[in-house]
This record gives sequence, C-alpha cells and structure tokens, in this order.
Amino acid sequence: MEELLKHRFFYTVAYEIYGGVKGLYDFGPPGSAMMANLIDLWREFFILEENMLQVQTAALTPEIVFKTSGHVDKFEDMMVRDVVTSECYRADHLLEDALEALLKTDLDEEARKEATTTLALLDNFNCQQLGEQLKKYKVKSPDTNNDITDPFPFNLMFSTSIGPTGKFKGYLRPETAQGMFVNFFRLLEQNAGKLPFAAAQIGPAYRNEIAPRSGLLRVREFTLAEIEHFVDPLDKSHPKFASVADYVLPLFSRVRQKEQTGIEKMTIGSAVPKTVNNETLGYFLVRVHKFLIKAGVRPEHIRFRQHLENEMAHYACDCWDAEIFTSYGWIECVGNADRACFDLSVHEKASGKKLSAFIPLAEPRDEEILVIQTNKPALGKSLKGDAKKVFAYLEDIKDEPLKLKQLQDNAKGSQTVQIDGVEVPTHLLTFAMQTKRVTGRTVQPSVIEPSFGLGRIVYCLLEHAYFSREGDEQRGVLSLKAVVAPYKVSLLPLVSAEQLVGVIPRLVRLLTRSRISYKADTTGVSVGKRYARTDELGIPFAVTIDFEGLSDDTVTLRERDSTQQVRIKIEEIPSVVMKLIDEELSWDDVRKTYPNVSVKEQ
Amino acid sequence: MEELLKHRFFYTVAYEIYGGVKGLYDFGPPGSAMMANLIDLWREFFILEENMLQVQTAALTPEIVFKTSGHVDKFEDMMVRDVVTSECYRADHLLEDALEALLKTDLDEEARKEATTTLALLDNFNCQQLGEQLKKYKVKSPDTNNDITDPFPFNLMFSTSIGPTGKFKGYLRPETAQGMFVNFFRLLEQNAGKLPFAAAQIGPAYRNEIAPRSGLLRVREFTLAEIEHFVDPLDKSHPKFASVADYVLPLFSRVRQKEQTGIEKMTIGSAVPKTVNNETLGYFLVRVHKFLIKAGVRPEHIRFRQHLENEMAHYACDCWDAEIFTSYGWIECVGNADRACFDLSVHEKASGKKLSAFIPLAEPRDEEILVIQTNKPALGKSLKGDAKKVFAYLEDIKDEPLKLKQLQDNAKGSQTVQIDGVEVPTHLLTFAMQTKRVTGRTVQPSVIEPSFGLGRIVYCLLEHAYFSREGDEQRGVLSLKAVVAPYKVSLLPLVSAEQLVGVIPRLVRLLTRSRISYKADTTGVSVGKRYARTDELGIPFAVTIDFEGLSDDTVTLRERDSTQQVRIKIEEIPSVVMKLIDEELSWDDVRKTYPNVSVKEQ
Repeated sequence: MEELLKHRFFYTVAYEIYGGVKGLYDFGPPGSAMMANLIDLWREFFILEENMLQVQTAALTPEIVFKTSGHVDKFEDMMVRDVVTSECYRADHLLEDALEALLKTDLDEEARKEATTTLALLDNFNCQQLGEQLKKYKVKSPDTNNDITDPFPFNLMFSTSIGPTGKFKGYLRPETAQGMFVNFFRLLEQNAGKLPFAAAQIGPAYRNEIAPRSGLLRVREFTLAEIEHFVDPLDKSHPKFASVADYVLPLFSRVRQKEQTGIEKMTIGSAVPKTVNNETLGYFLVRVHKFLIKAGVRPEHIRFRQHLENEMAHYACDCWDAEIFTSYGWIECVGNADRACFDLSVHEKASGKKLSAFIPLAEPRDEEILVIQTNKPALGKSLKGDAKKVFAYLEDIKDEPLKLKQLQDNAKGSQTVQIDGVEVPTHLLTFAMQTKRVTGRTVQPSVIEPSFGLGRIVYCLLEHAYFSREGDEQRGVLSLKAVVAPYKVSLLPLVSAEQLVGVIPRLVRLLTRSRISYKADTTGVSVGKRYARTDELGIPFAVTIDFEGLSDDTVTLRERDSTQQVRIKIEEIPSVVMKLIDEELSWDDVRKTYPNVSVKEQ
Repeated sequence: MEELLKHRFFYTVAYEIYGGVKGLYDFGPPGSAMMANLIDLWREFFILEENMLQVQTAALTPEIVFKTSGHVDKFEDMMVRDVVTSECYRADHLLEDALEALLKTDLDEEARKEATTTLALLDNFNCQQLGEQLKKYKVKSPDTNNDITDPFPFNLMFSTSIGPTGKFKGYLRPETAQGMFVNFFRLLEQNAGKLPFAAAQIGPAYRNEIAPRSGLLRVREFTLAEIEHFVDPLDKSHPKFASVADYVLPLFSRVRQKEQTGIEKMTIGSAVPKTVNNETLGYFLVRVHKFLIKAGVRPEHIRFRQHLENEMAHYACDCWDAEIFTSYGWIECVGNADRACFDLSVHEKASGKKLSAFIPLAEPRDEEILVIQTNKPALGKSLKGDAKKVFAYLEDIKDEPLKLKQLQDNAKGSQTVQIDGVEVPTHLLTFAMQTKRVTGRTVQPSVIEPSFGLGRIVYCLLEHAYFSREGDEQRGVLSLKAVVAPYKVSLLPLVSAEQLVGVIPRLVRLLTRSRISYKADTTGVSVGKRYARTDELGIPFAVTIDFEGLSDDTVTLRERDSTQQVRIKIEEIPSVVMKLIDEELSWDDVRKTYPNVSVKEQ
C-alpha cells in the first residue's frame, strides 16, 4: 500500500529530493483532495449541524500565552540519549519496544505477567518511573547497543523569535485551542452572552516530536480540527443527550485497562455519569463515533480509551481518546477532554481580562448573600492613589461569592488584607449577609474539547480501504467512501477515438454544474489499465464512453469495488452519482433500475 | 469601519487580552466565513476551471531548501535602529513617511520635484542608496527624534530548530512555492510527464516583518494561494490566450512609473510581448483581474504595476503586481511573477535530483548533435570506484546539448576534466557530431507564478463594501457580494411571537438542503435593529416572517443595499436566493416578478 500511496502521490515525506525530513509530509493532489473532503464533511457534521462559531487564529504565539497555559513547563516527552553518539530517543518508545521484544521470547509466567502489566501501564509512568523501568529491563540504545542516559523532559514546542529585536520569544502552537480561549470574551459576545456555545477551528499545529516514526501517524506539522464547547460548570447536561442515550459505544475505561479486561459495549445513557463524566462529554463521544463511521472508518476498529490518571494532559479532568486500529496498533485519532475551567481561569488571572459568563436564573429570587461594605471616603484617604484600583476590584468580584468568602477569610483577625496587591486596613471593610435580588450567577465555563488529528484519520481511512483484487496481488484498490474519495467519477473513453473523446466536454459541463469532482483519463492505454488507475486513486465510479452508447446517448457506469457496470443515459449521470455519493441510493438500487452490462476486466 | 469589524468580530489583533501582538490577527466567525468563501471561489475559479494539481506541503522547512532558493541570503528588508532606544524601523517606511510629510510643506518647485521622484522610485533603492537618502533628508527616529543607524539587512524568515538535537536549523516558509518546486518530479509524473501544467496550493506563510502596520495589510502570518504554472521556456504561449486577447487591463508599466504618466488601459493582446513579457503571464493577469472583480473589488480600484528592475525578487525576471486602492494607498494583493527556471535549476543542482521535463517533437527528425563517446573499459580501469558515477552522469546529460558543450569546452586543451567531482583523463573521451533521430528535448521549465495574499483581499473587499446609510452615520452597511458574504440569508421573525419563530426550523431545513448559509436572529430587539445587525455582517438577504404571511405561507425577502422587500412563497426562497447568489437573477428581476412590499425602516 505504501508504494501505491507514494506512486499516486497521496502523500510523501517532505523534502524528498534532499533526503526527506522525518515527521514532515506533503500531500499530493489525491491526498490533499481527500483532506479537503474530510474537512468539508467535518464542517457540515459539526460546525453547521451544531451551529458552532468558527474562527481562524494565529499559529505564532507569544511566550506569555503558553507560559500561562502550562505548555512551557509541562508540554513535554521524556527523552534519553545514546551516551556515545548523543542520538535522541523517546524513553517510553524504547521501553515499549524492549518489552514487546521480551514478550516474544521464552519467559516464565511471572515475568511475562509483569512485562505485560508494565506495557499496559506505560503511558502512566512519570519521568522517574520510566527511568527505573529502563534500568530494570536494561534497555540500550537500539541503533548501537550503547548505554543510554536517564530520561529527562524535552519540550515539544517549536520556538522562534517574533519581531526584529530577537528578544520577544514565541512558539508555534501545538494545539489550536488557546486561540479560542484568549478570544472567549469576543465569542461570548457573538453568542449574545449566552452559555453553552461552541467555538471550532481547523488549522495547522506543530509539535517537535523527538523521534517521529509510523509515517503519517506521528508528525511534526499537522492539521487539527478542534471544538471548544463552553458550558456551565454546575450543569454539564446537553439538550440533545436524550436523543443519543441508547447509542452503544465501545468503551475501554481506566478500570478495565488496569484489569486488562478489554472494551465494554454500553449505551452512553448507562455510561454517564459513572463511567463517562457528564452528558456533554458523552454526547460528543457519540458524535465523534458517528463521524468516524460516516467518513469510512470500520466500526469494529474503533474504541474509546479513557486516559489513566497520570497520563492526562495537565489541563484535563477526564479524557477519552477515540482510537482506531491499524497495522501500527491502536492509534489515538480524536482526543475528547474535559478541560474544566483550567484555561479560562489561568488566562483571566494572567491577563486581568474577565473571561467568565453570566448565567441568568429562570426566575430571579431573593437570597441571603455575602456583601462587602466599604467606607469609601475613609478608604480613599487611607489608600490615596491605590483607592481606585481597590474599588474597581471590589466592584468586579461583587457577584462572586467564592471570591468574597476568600477575602473575608483572609481579613479575619488581621489588621490589613491584600486586595489586588494593595494592603487595605480591615477596619474600613465590613462584611455582612444581605438579602439581595439574585438574577443569576457569574461562572468560569468548563470546556469540553473534542480534538481531531485529521492526518491520522486520513491514514486510517486509507489503510482500512486498501485491498487487492482477487487473484491479482498487483492490483490494489482503495475502497474509499465516496464522500471522502479524492475524485468522485472518472471519465474514460473506451479507446482514444475522437468520437468517444468528444463526449467528455459535455460530461464535464454536466458534472461541474452539479459540483461533482472528476478525473478524465484519455491516455492511449487499455481501458483495463485505466480502470486499475482509478481503483488506485479510490475513485468510486467510472463513466465509460463506448461506441454502442453513441446511438442512444448512453454510457456505462462502473462501481469500483464490485467492478459491475450498468448502462445509463448521459443526462442522468449527475443525479444518479449525486444520490450514490449522498447514500440516498445504493449500488444495488442502481443495478435494479438500469440495464446491467456484463464486462470481463483483466 | 474598524470599530464595526472588531465589534462584529470579523477580525481582531491576536492575543488582545495580553495587549496584542503586532502583525498577528485572529478571524472571528464572520471573518473566517468570508475567508472560507474566498478560498472556495478561488478553488473553483483557478484549480477546477484550469484543472490544476492541488497540493498541501509542509510549512516547516529545512535550511538547505531556503539556502538553495536564495531566501537565506536575500529575503530581507532594510532596517534601522534608534541609536538610543534600539527600537527597530523599516528604512524605506521612514523615508517614505519623511518624504510625504515634506511634500505637505511649502517647497520650491525643484525640491518638490526631487522629493516626488524619490518617493516614486523608493522601491527601487538598494541598501546604500536608502542610506544616502535617509541622510540627505535628515530622517530621525519617528518616536523619539533621536538619530538612526545606517540601514542594514534583516532577514524576514522565522527560524526554528527541527528535532531534539538543536542542530538542525529550519525556517517557517515565507511563501508556499518551494513546496511545489521540490515536488516537481512527482507532479510531472501525475500529469503523465507532459508540460505545461500548474500546481496550486492554499496555506499559511510567515514573514517576520520589522514593524508591521496597516492592519491586515502587513502581517506576520497569512494565508497565501499560489499557482506555479510550469511551461516550456522556449514557448510561453497559452492555448486560451486568444480567448482573452481583447480584454482590457489597467497597466502601469515600468516606463510609465519612471515617466510618472499613470496607468494605461490596453488589451492584453496588444500588451504582449512588448509590455507584458509573454502570453502565459498575460493570460494570468486577465484571470486575476476577473477573479478580483468577481469577488467584489471595484474595477476602478485595480491596477497592474510592473516591478522596477531592482525591486524584483531575486528569482523573478518579470513581475506585475495586481494592486488595489484603499485608504492606505495602492496595496499589492497578487504578485504575478515569471520566475523563469531559477528555482528548479538551483534545486536540481543542490539535490542532484533531476527536475526537468521532456518535450516531444510533433515529428521526430534527424539532427546533427554533439555526442560524447567513451572508452568504457579504459575509463573503468582508470577511474576504478568512481567510474560508475561518471558513467551515470554522462548518461544523464546525453540529451542536454548545453551541458555537453560546456564539458567539451572544459576538456579542450586540458589533460583532465572534472565530471561530477571526478578528474577524468580527456584522452578517454571523444566528442563528435552525430546524426541522431531526435524525438524531443529536455528542458528546465519556466514558472509563471500568480501569488494571492488572501487576507489583504479580504481587507480590500471590506473597505470597498463599507458605507453608511444616508442620513444615519451610525448605521454601517457592508455591501459585500453574496459570493463572499459570511452568511447569505438572515432569518428574522418580525417580533418574537411563537407563531413566527416556529417557522424558522422549516426555513433552516430548506436552506440547509440547498447548502445556503444563514443566521437566525430571534432576540427580542426591534426588527429595525436586527436589520441593522445583518447589514453590519454584510448579509445580502433577509427573510422576515410576519403575521400576514402565516395565512398564505409567504415571507418577505429584503435586499440589503436598497432595503427593498418583496413578498414570496416560503418554498421558493432557496431557489430564488440561490439564483441571486449565482447572479443568474438580479434584484430588479425579483422585484418585477414578486409583489413589492413597502416598508419604512428607521
């Protein structure tokens, strides 16, 4: 398959003429068409159907943003070096390879059990634990068999310098999410101030992987499609949850990973909240599953694996990866994390810009709430220039009971209390309970984030789609679903006679009007060879123009996987193909409606 | 207008909550929808209509690529520093500002003429000339009035390090073109080895501008849409040129810039080859012009300005910028360069990978050509291990008369000659003229490159579209063409009564089926205010649901610019709107067909 994908230029390692650069890939015409189709499907499935706010934010990011989000300190993998050659390796990959090799040897039962457990919990290890395991299994450098260093953290962000001074550090974003968090207040405004709502973004992201391998599956530059669904932290229900409650998902929970008992199929209705944290997260797991199947991933090759406690990103409080099975094993393709209010709260604190939302009550009601009363003139006199700052702060937090309570606790029994960096005499502040008309509450929204690695999904689709024609190992076919196939129709004159080739412009006009992509192949080679070409490109339907059809204005329509053909009027081609693409018609329906043509391909 | 664009979140400076980063912008929902629509239009207009090969290549680029392409050494602007504060400025911008300020003062005629000429030729100056002019006009630091340094070059590429070693230098691409050049051999293969053909790419590019200003017009991260049209260097004719020969373009040639005589309107047929170098370049100028107008740029605000000799990029041999007039003056939006064979030839040389194409003759013919005959056994004996390399090289160049001639010249009168780094005794090589059946020639294709700055075009569209309602300065309208407008239809119940709001889901279903984007506004504010909102978002059509229509299943359809309305059956909405978007119907046609509704908006 790799050979076919390269030869037809689905994709190839980048800068091939210079020997290639690991972890960077270029998509050729069919690959970039597939990517564009997958993006279109994603936009329709998520952005349009769920009415999300799409944005496009900068990839270049100043240091303060990733310092605040924790990426500068914590977005890292553990690395080891060969002590002689200094070659770099990912510590967990070396341990994984060593354990897998070991398990292929003769082992007593206890050793086998231990190695298996270690392998299963690999993603859970911190730096020190990884070091201990590497020592325990005497792991060496794989290329030289030299000793390796202890593991140490390596930050995965590409850094650069923004502007001409060389002093303003920046990073290439490793995720598109931060661009949505820092714009939260503008997005909220576009949604008329109301929660919940979702922002979405499709764009490039960059991670400086230590030692990329596995082709398209681990790369340094990739296209992410990310959703940030902002929701009331006290109410993570989802209005459409009831409509999917009976949907069955293959869940591989934390518990079952530790027990090594495999996946469990259960309805999302029964999984929430004990297994899956909340309705909104559950709703998105269902939507992700449906999307992957719609794009063409085989259902039996999908599972949702919950992150282990130590494995979760620093910002997450629950996380389920949609994993797809490939020849490289189970591959994470969509991360579904509940990031809680982590990002908004750290950015609010660091920037001083309010990143919260007001949730009105259905009915305003009177409540006993904590208020703060200040002696303004006395405070003004005591604080002088700082008074304004303190008043503004107190005004800001007046609807935030938690912050007021905190301030009250800090003030208790002290002469002064710090307010926004200013020492304020406590005798000038009075805390009291007051009956107040409450119309709602101010919250820092929680964020549910489904994050799609589109390149990985493209790879999985290709791998799942590939098969060889029976009896001919050489004839590869990409059985891609029409919705993602790079082109929908190929146009093939049976032979390169002028009469037949002359029909093509008319077909092109008809297809273009219906916005159906096509590829005409008028080269002189046999039609069998040209069918083989269209099969390699995964084109689901072929229109063959033959002499027989010239008299009654017909052509034949061929279905890729079965190679069956029917005869059909030229003007009917666009509507029939459109219905086949949209799955309003099956190929069997078409065979029942139109005369079948018997063709023997060789 | 800036206020409207920010308030409606078309775009905003990135990382606003941290004070913003100059030259980086985030697009909000309407802005990113406009960008997506412009990209769709571009793909249809260029990639589909001209049958181009679309690719998506990596933005991270190893140093060797940009070293080879000349960008490491030459992709730079001239910078000066404030001698006291070290603040950085672009030298040409300071000179420009100083001259413009000077021209606003009282000057004698000669001084005025000199300053005007200097201003017109500004882009032509090299580093030394810029320095002389800055001295001559005694230009100071604009913020402090301190002295400034002499200008010096500053490279505009963002650099980073690829991989964990810190030793493998990389850059973020400042153009997407190199990704297509390095894949030339794969693209040629996809086109069955035939010239001409075009590759195209839409994607991010990065330039570390010294001191970005002018909002979206000069940014550090932007979306480029680039075409690389590969063509026989000896025959740059274009098959479709005849069909556009009578098309009139506003050309501002090098000569007319020096004479300061303004643009000249001429047919492209009469401009090629004396003014515009060749047919292919001329054909693309026409296509670019048509595209800009289709997107909504005002024709009277477009001109094509030829680059001055010193102004051209290091790779270009002729270049015409499509410039659009805005409040910032004339702005380059599409560069149209003939890069000749510069890029392919330097990459071929540096990588050793053949980046050329074979052009067959219509009729093979016999020709006297230079050949090289080698004494293979003797050479093998003399060169030993190097023989293979030399034979391969000679085989490689056997159809390249220029390289053979070069080798012959080098060998003349010497004992040895270098072949691919190996010293070869000349007495073992025999050069001779031979009659040979020639079937074609091997060429390094020339490249014609139209390169679109999509963000700049979006800005120009917004600026050209903006107007205020007569008699109400506060009511801004974005008169965007439907094809690029962020949403096509707004859905407005006259008041927020349940009966009226209840019609919306049906309209949504009808519009979604026809893939027409919409925005429903069911907030309680007056319909007049909601019309004003849709005007600010540039939504061309509004559907208003009123009580009158409930009885006969009609709604009113409002056209944004005129605010005129007609009454129309609900089920006719999708097809009428679709025809209005595709410009198959004009608003006047609609007014003639459907009953007019008289409404007074306030």
